[in-house]
Amino acid sequence: MKKAVSIIMGSQSDLETMQEAIDLLKKFKVGFEVKVLSAHRTPRELAKYVESVPKKGVKVFICAAGGAAALAGVVAAHTTEPVIGVPIETKSLKGLDSLLSIVQMPAGIPVACMAIGRAGAKNAAIFALEILGIRDASINLKLASHKRTMAAKIKRIKLKI
Amino acid sequence: MKKAVSIIMGSQSDLETMQEAIDLLKKFKVGFEVKVLSAHRTPRELAKYVESVPKKGVKVFICAAGGAAALAGVVAAHTTEPVIGVPIETKSLKGLDSLLSIVQMPAGIPVACMAIGRAGAKNAAIFALEILGIRDASINLKLASHKRTMAAKIKRIKLKI
Amino acid sequence: MKKAVSIIMGSQSDLETMQEAIDLLKKFKVGFEVKVLSAHRTPRELAKYVESVPKKGVKVFICAAGGAAALAGVVAAHTTEPVIGVPIETKSLKGLDSLLSIVQMPAGIPVACMAIGRAGAKNAAIFALEILGIRDASINLKLASHKRTMAAKIKRIKLKI
Amino acid sequence: MKKAVSIIMGSQSDLETMQEAIDLLKKFKVGFEVKVLSAHRTPRELAKYVESVPKKGVKVFICAAGGAAALAGVVAAHTTEPVIGVPIETKSLKGLDSLLSIVQMPAGIPVACMAIGRAGAKNAAIFALEILGIRDASINLKLASHKRTMAAKIKRIKLKI
Amino acid sequence: MKKAVSIIMGSQSDLETMQEAIDLLKKFKVGFEVKVLSAHRTPRELAKYVESVPKKGVKVFICAAGGAAALAGVVAAHTTEPVIGVPIETKSLKGLDSLLSIVQMPAGIPVACMAIGRAGAKNAAIFALEILGIRDASINLKLASHKRTMAAKIKRIKLKI
Amino acid sequence: MKKAVSIIMGSQSDLETMQEAIDLLKKFKVGFEVKVLSAHRTPRELAKYVESVPKKGVKVFICAAGGAAALAGVVAAHTTEPVIGVPIETKSLKGLDSLLSIVQMPAGIPVACMAIGRAGAKNAAIFALEILGIRDASINLKLASHKRTMAAKIKRIKLKI
Amino acid sequence: MKKAVSIIMGSQSDLETMQEAIDLLKKFKVGFEVKVLSAHRTPRELAKYVESVPKKGVKVFICAAGGAAALAGVVAAHTTEPVIGVPIETKSLKGLDSLLSIVQMPAGIPVACMAIGRAGAKNAAIFALEILGIRDASINLKLASHKRTMAAKIKRIKLKI
Amino acid sequence: MKKAVSIIMGSQSDLETMQEAIDLLKKFKVGFEVKVLSAHRTPRELAKYVESVPKKGVKVFICAAGGAAALAGVVAAHTTEPVIGVPIETKSLKGLDSLLSIVQMPAGIPVACMAIGRAGAKNAAIFALEILGIRDASINLKLASHKRTMAAKIKRIKLKI
Repeated sequence: MKKAVSIIMGSQSDLETMQEAIDLLKKFKVGFEVKVLSAHRTPRELAKYVESVPKKGVKVFICAAGGAAALAGVVAAHTTEPVIGVPIETKSLKGLDSLLSIVQMPAGIPVACMAIGRAGAKNAAIFALEILGIRDASINLKLASHKRTMAAKIKRIKLKI
Repeated sequence: MKKAVSIIMGSQSDLETMQEAIDLLKKFKVGFEVKVLSAHRTPRELAKYVESVPKKGVKVFICAAGGAAALAGVVAAHTTEPVIGVPIETKSLKGLDSLLSIVQMPAGIPVACMAIGRAGAKNAAIFALEILGIRDASINLKLASHKRTMAAKIKRIKLKI
Repeated sequence: MKKAVSIIMGSQSDLETMQEAIDLLKKFKVGFEVKVLSAHRTPRELAKYVESVPKKGVKVFICAAGGAAALAGVVAAHTTEPVIGVPIETKSLKGLDSLLSIVQMPAGIPVACMAIGRAGAKNAAIFALEILGIRDASINLKLASHKRTMAAKIKRIKLKI
Repeated sequence: MKKAVSIIMGSQSDLETMQEAIDLLKKFKVGFEVKVLSAHRTPRELAKYVESVPKKGVKVFICAAGGAAALAGVVAAHTTEPVIGVPIETKSLKGLDSLLSIVQMPAGIPVACMAIGRAGAKNAAIFALEILGIRDASINLKLASHKRTMAAKIKRIKLKI
Repeated sequence: MKKAVSIIMGSQSDLETMQEAIDLLKKFKVGFEVKVLSAHRTPRELAKYVESVPKKGVKVFICAAGGAAALAGVVAAHTTEPVIGVPIETKSLKGLDSLLSIVQMPAGIPVACMAIGRAGAKNAAIFALEILGIRDASINLKLASHKRTMAAKIKRIKLKI
Repeated sequence: MKKAVSIIMGSQSDLETMQEAIDLLKKFKVGFEVKVLSAHRTPRELAKYVESVPKKGVKVFICAAGGAAALAGVVAAHTTEPVIGVPIETKSLKGLDSLLSIVQMPAGIPVACMAIGRAGAKNAAIFALEILGIRDASINLKLASHKRTMAAKIKRIKLKI
Repeated sequence: MKKAVSIIMGSQSDLETMQEAIDLLKKFKVGFEVKVLSAHRTPRELAKYVESVPKKGVKVFICAAGGAAALAGVVAAHTTEPVIGVPIETKSLKGLDSLLSIVQMPAGIPVACMAIGRAGAKNAAIFALEILGIRDASINLKLASHKRTMAAKIKRIKLKI
Repeated sequence: MKKAVSIIMGSQSDLETMQEAIDLLKKFKVGFEVKVLSAHRTPRELAKYVESVPKKGVKVFICAAGGAAALAGVVAAHTTEPVIGVPIETKSLKGLDSLLSIVQMPAGIPVACMAIGRAGAKNAAIFALEILGIRDASINLKLASHKRTMAAKIKRIKLKI
């Protein structure tokens, strides 16, 4: 199976958050790979990796990092493929630092920022699928079905009040 | 020309910011259309519009709004196509309100949030092009060339210090 | 009993917070109904529901949501009845995101924003009662009595210092 | 004409912001009165005024203040009628201080907080009308028509791009 | 013993924080009294109390409240004696709301704001003593001695590193 | 005339803000002196000055500084007389930095923090007068009269709406 | 062994955070000493200490404090040696107060601010070593090796997904 | 003259802020060079440049960037020489985004963060000189003299009040 999505994390501890994205991609049976690479601690390996993946078939990047979260921006600097950023919650500033470091990119180098934490991780995977869906109608159909299931689940809720 | 991108603004005054996106899409000769539609003031028209555009060929939405910026999220609620959000700077809170209203989407309905204001508007267009680029290699080539031009411009700078 | 108040939550998990509002409305013997409906996950059902309730006698909406909390604003978009918003505390940003997404509504479509979390939930119910009180003097009398009881409780406090 | 709405400002300089509310109430031909009274500078007059207005027919209060904006909360302390708060933009903190001082009311004493500044002022008037509308169907009809006009205006916009 | 200091809390739960102030005043053997009175829930009792205390000998007020913390400002509105405010930590916004509601007083009615929480409570007591010290040299001497003890304690610290 | 109040500014540019305090003290005919001394740029002179003033009769300090505003805290470190802090508005963070640097003092060394900017400056002077008033009844009488005048001015306002 | 680095903490409780810095300096076998001294509680001892250390060979200061964290700035006021500041996480504001109090120094007196908490503590030590490295090539070599080890550790990570 | 300091800016527009640093280094007659290089727009050139400069004699880096300011962190990733970061004020968030993106570096890769804007730029130069001063006593002497001059200027101020 081709690896259409590359998930990069700045630190091993981000896996807990990113598991949401991994599980969703598995469920959709879309090929992906996961790497721990840091814009600050392994800059050369990161650059080399980003430049190497197009031949593997990678079409979208998902980058998760916390604090001075340079990862997504630096990946975006090395590719013209879409880069999605997930701000990891941090101990003191609760991910506000991660969020601003990811979302406030300068004109010219976009990063698609998701919500802080797990919701953002899951949405990164869905957004990656939406992107892949523009050239693979079968993914789009699955997304529409996934969305209907989600809505149906809400409609079935019986509150005990 | 098919309209691959739909730009929706919550208010006419957002055009000043979004002109950056419009100019870039023109430069790349990618078809697009621009609408003023509000999640709060024209909710029915907005829903109807979002559901109608796939047949026009729209593949990506760019939604700009300020304050309690529900627009991008509501558009995302009605489509499985990628939705990019641009937080408009607001008078009092300077777009921090717009940013949080756009980026903090719940799990299941992603919006790709860009930076506040003009940089975000321009990046929304580039990001839309990156998405279109995954099925149209010619856009991807133009993006790579645009990026090289940008880098070359920086390298030519002569500072007077 | 007519259902004068409609409580809508964006997610089932908001019930824990909104129980405060439910208990108060029960205590005042004012008819109400509670729904889980999401501006992002069930947009069509939400719109249909909001438009359907006037015939049930609903006079006031209470909408609770967290994060990019579009719910109250979208309900307000579909009605001219008063809409009260309750920002739910979120994991990372502690409800500041919910608060700004609810309170910073654009001119034309008001939402009455309460405090973040349980105090806001309880106050939403009291505020709904105050609104109903302008055409039902008996509710007003009960509110005044409820307020006196609250004050009396404070006056009876004996501190051990 | 009875005075159904009482607008109270903490300072004369708030009039610039509150003119939006005044103009809207005039347009709807709903009786109102406007006072400058401060929770900090004229506490006794404020309390006396709030207790005196029910006999004039006042059904809703709109309170505008900036900074440590205690006005709306103190008015709410003296009445069981609905109190709407408008956070005035401040020089340094841009109204974030006013917003938190108004919205974060303790359980038991609700204030309906609007957006910071002019949008909030206008929405305070609309919200007051929505409240009055629950016992005066003619106001409700006018609100629905006002909303349609607003939507129609948006639909007529022709962008020059 | 005369009651030179009046400590007022907006809620019984604030006692946990204010115990720091109480303990310090006891240690200095300065007379004080403690009341639970709320600007929002018992406004009349609060006003009456503030106006009544000068004859008891109260020279300084310490007011603790959280959220839309109007208490200190409303006390200051009714007296020309110094009022010290202690922002109580809140569940969601961690006392930033309390802080801004207390410190951002309008020109004319000062409140002396301390730090959020226990440090603020203790400092409120010390500051009250500093004020009393300007007419009672014995308090001033005790304060100087208390400060030397504090410094001596720091100097005796042996770190195990 | 004895100098009961010492006003210290961290920078000459703070005078514009502090003029409010100066004017008020002049109006009350209370002796004061004004110094430019910095906790960061003239630490030795500052310490020496603070220790020297008691013999001049200084009873209260007013300290104004912006940014990492250590001035008031450092003055408080060297005295047991009451220290009032005025956070100066800063260019980028608008005085939020100054406010937190002044108000968040550790237990043991209180600083009485006022509002950011001119309102804070004026209130610092009034608060200093309130402190002096506890041993000089004539100041207290003037303060009460000043407050009545302020209230009267508000009551005389005629709005043109 | 000469003491090239002086670590100063505002409070004994800061040791928990600063242990990271201590451990790293030990590992690099660079001489250092650790003091608890407070800008607010022991200002004279602090000033005397800072002026005394150059003769011990101290070349860099690391200063950790929380809240109104004046420590690093006051140390910088008394020396022309490099001062590194570590913002300690605080209970209510999570170190945002400490951060702004340390980083927003006025022109003329720099403090090198690190991240809030443990990451900042560790980085303070590394940065101190980088400074010492400019005159001691052996430290520089060890730093480069430490960095390679860190990168190698990341590259060896095997994720279980 | 050797180039001991390298100043890197993410954008040409940052020169206005950084002129403060340039002027100071000129005044101290310390060799330096200034580059416009971006972590996002010219990542390869940036990496190559950072690795090339040690042979020119560069001992300290000063990096200025705004928004998602990855520059300083990425430079630090490629060197073990000290890196100083200057957060540039941004249009919407006023440099709070730049500040958090620079200061919240992960453990292992320190950046010495200065204040937002011009004060930070000037202090970056002084801090660079302090670092150089640890192996060049003449710089240290000049710094001490510069500091005395600054203090003397403050002491000569005559206020007109």
